[in-house]
Amino acid sequence: MQEYTAIKLIARPSGGPITDELFETVTMPRPELADGEFLVQQTYMSLDPAMFGWMSPDTESYIPPVALGDVMRSSGIGNVIESKHPDFQVGDRVTGLLGWTELLKTNGQGINKVQNDLPDETILSVFALPGLTATQGLFSIGKPKAGETIVVTGAAGSVGSIVGQLAKADGLNVIGVVGGDEKASWIVNELGFDGAINYKTDDLKAKLDELAPNGVDVYFENTGGPIQQAVFNKMNVHGRIAVCGMIADYAKAIPDPGPNWIPMIKKRLTVQGYAMPDHFGDIPALLTKLTPYVMQGKIKYRSHILDGLPSAITGLNLFFTGGNQGKLMVKL
Amino acid sequence: MQEYTAIKLIARPSGGPITDELFETVTMPRPELADGEFLVQQTYMSLDPAMFGWMSPDTESYIPPVALGDVMRSSGIGNVIESKHPDFQVGDRVTGLLGWTELLKTNGQGINKVQNDLPDETILSVFALPGLTATQGLFSIGKPKAGETIVVTGAAGSVGSIVGQLAKADGLNVIGVVGGDEKASWIVNELGFDGAINYKTDDLKAKLDELAPNGVDVYFENTGGPIQQAVFNKMNVHGRIAVCGMIADYAKAIPDPGPNWIPMIKKRLTVQGYAMPDHFGDIPALLTKLTPYVMQGKIKYRSHILDGLPSAITGLNLFFTGGNQGKLMVKL
Repeated sequence: MQEYTAIKLIARPSGGPITDELFETVTMPRPELADGEFLVQQTYMSLDPAMFGWMSPDTESYIPPVALGDVMRSSGIGNVIESKHPDFQVGDRVTGLLGWTELLKTNGQGINKVQNDLPDETILSVFALPGLTATQGLFSIGKPKAGETIVVTGAAGSVGSIVGQLAKADGLNVIGVVGGDEKASWIVNELGFDGAINYKTDDLKAKLDELAPNGVDVYFENTGGPIQQAVFNKMNVHGRIAVCGMIADYAKAIPDPGPNWIPMIKKRLTVQGYAMPDHFGDIPALLTKLTPYVMQGKIKYRSHILDGLPSAITGLNLFFTGGNQGKLMVKL
Repeated sequence: MQEYTAIKLIARPSGGPITDELFETVTMPRPELADGEFLVQQTYMSLDPAMFGWMSPDTESYIPPVALGDVMRSSGIGNVIESKHPDFQVGDRVTGLLGWTELLKTNGQGINKVQNDLPDETILSVFALPGLTATQGLFSIGKPKAGETIVVTGAAGSVGSIVGQLAKADGLNVIGVVGGDEKASWIVNELGFDGAINYKTDDLKAKLDELAPNGVDVYFENTGGPIQQAVFNKMNVHGRIAVCGMIADYAKAIPDPGPNWIPMIKKRLTVQGYAMPDHFGDIPALLTKLTPYVMQGKIKYRSHILDGLPSAITGLNLFFTGGNQGKLMVKL
């Protein structure tokens, strides 16, 4: 491989779908290595809703936006194919923020070796951002207790599907909100959720009343949208709400308003937003928490694999349409 | 005193001002005491925004609503004027949920003796619900740190005025939101707040930008209303929001919506509602925390005293108009 392809961000989205005009695809010569550097050939690249934040100009977000003209940021997995670094050898498998590129020259900062022989898809679907995000939010904010009821939005998504399975393993009544009947069937019949709500077709209030007759104790929010008010209305006293994602509002120029705060007082609710960059130091503890569930076969996943670097661009829009079935990733 | 007056709740408010039609004033004979009972003559009766919750039919509130036909609930202070109870003697001063009544026959449950000789107004204004509520919410949820900025709404009110003074004593930049120039002047010039916003006349965004150039770390919410979105927009990363009251929305049939939750994630905010009945067991610890500030002269207050039991009814509307100047109470 004497040259490689990368995709740079050259404009910022202003609401609406992600289009080719925001990006520039470049072909570059294979980089020369200096001492202390190594070269990674990426095999799978993860697409995540967090990318919309990284593309936005909002400097208040939790990590700086991608600078215009820089390679688009993403996490991924790959193999070391050349090395002048003492700690990384040719053939090592590594993960990190590799970006939208086939090859990455790096000094190893933020790059970690993969210490197991699980498939690439499993690592990106469970042991990378999705599983860590699910574990952090569910246990630190949701504080689930056996017998309680949890509602998870984006329940067929990469984070939501793991949240629901962790909660089910811990003995909760688990309700997932999804955007299609196939997804509803998958989370109930394959993942073991107790019930599913199709937010596009169901009567939200009636379905919630049916599935959560004792109200909702934990609300894991991945989407926003009209379901938010419906679930908020069903919260029990001392309920906990983890706000992980608001995908339904990211593409809106003016996001929809949220619930009035009177029930926060009446029911003494806690609503807490979080993002993983605050918790990178907790990753070893999160993996210690998550791994036994996976080893006991309690965490299933499915991957939605796109083919080739250019597919990433329009692939991002699957988050808005809900068209992805499982953890979205790009095979390079 | 061979007979006494009490006021019973006979209908529930349905939005809009509190009117005489919701109540019935009754004259009753002085009660006979059985063994283990004593008779309290109330001297000052506290009016608090929490009463709107107690009057509402909402069974989800933190304590049961007042049953129709029962004496309206309120806290107060008074003197024991007759006793067949071994632990309460004639002349003892007591506090508790005495209700809208001149005389109360009780077995002592929920009634506590006043262990100091502070004036009745001081006890109701500082060491009763207002001071306990301020102390609980500010320190447990707000987690204030010297050098941070706090915004307190309802800042001239009974709770807000104490929150601001506690925060000022701990070295924060303290901004109070009030509904009039006299109140603005009082909190800045008498209580030592760093700045005041008159939500009725100021440009909220411009004034917040001026008074909180480094953003807002702690938001103590007593009111709701348009100021909520303006303060929410100014929250800093890892900001804490204590939701204590939403007086601007209590009388609305359909409360205004709240802020969209995207900033909860971007800034990793925590929003927590609370109510004192959850924390009655913590009152000794709260008094231990609060008392030194009072003894050091750091907590000033003013009382707005209405005269006579019937004044309570229309007096409640002062919370909606902001017409009260200081802790609202009724002298009997």
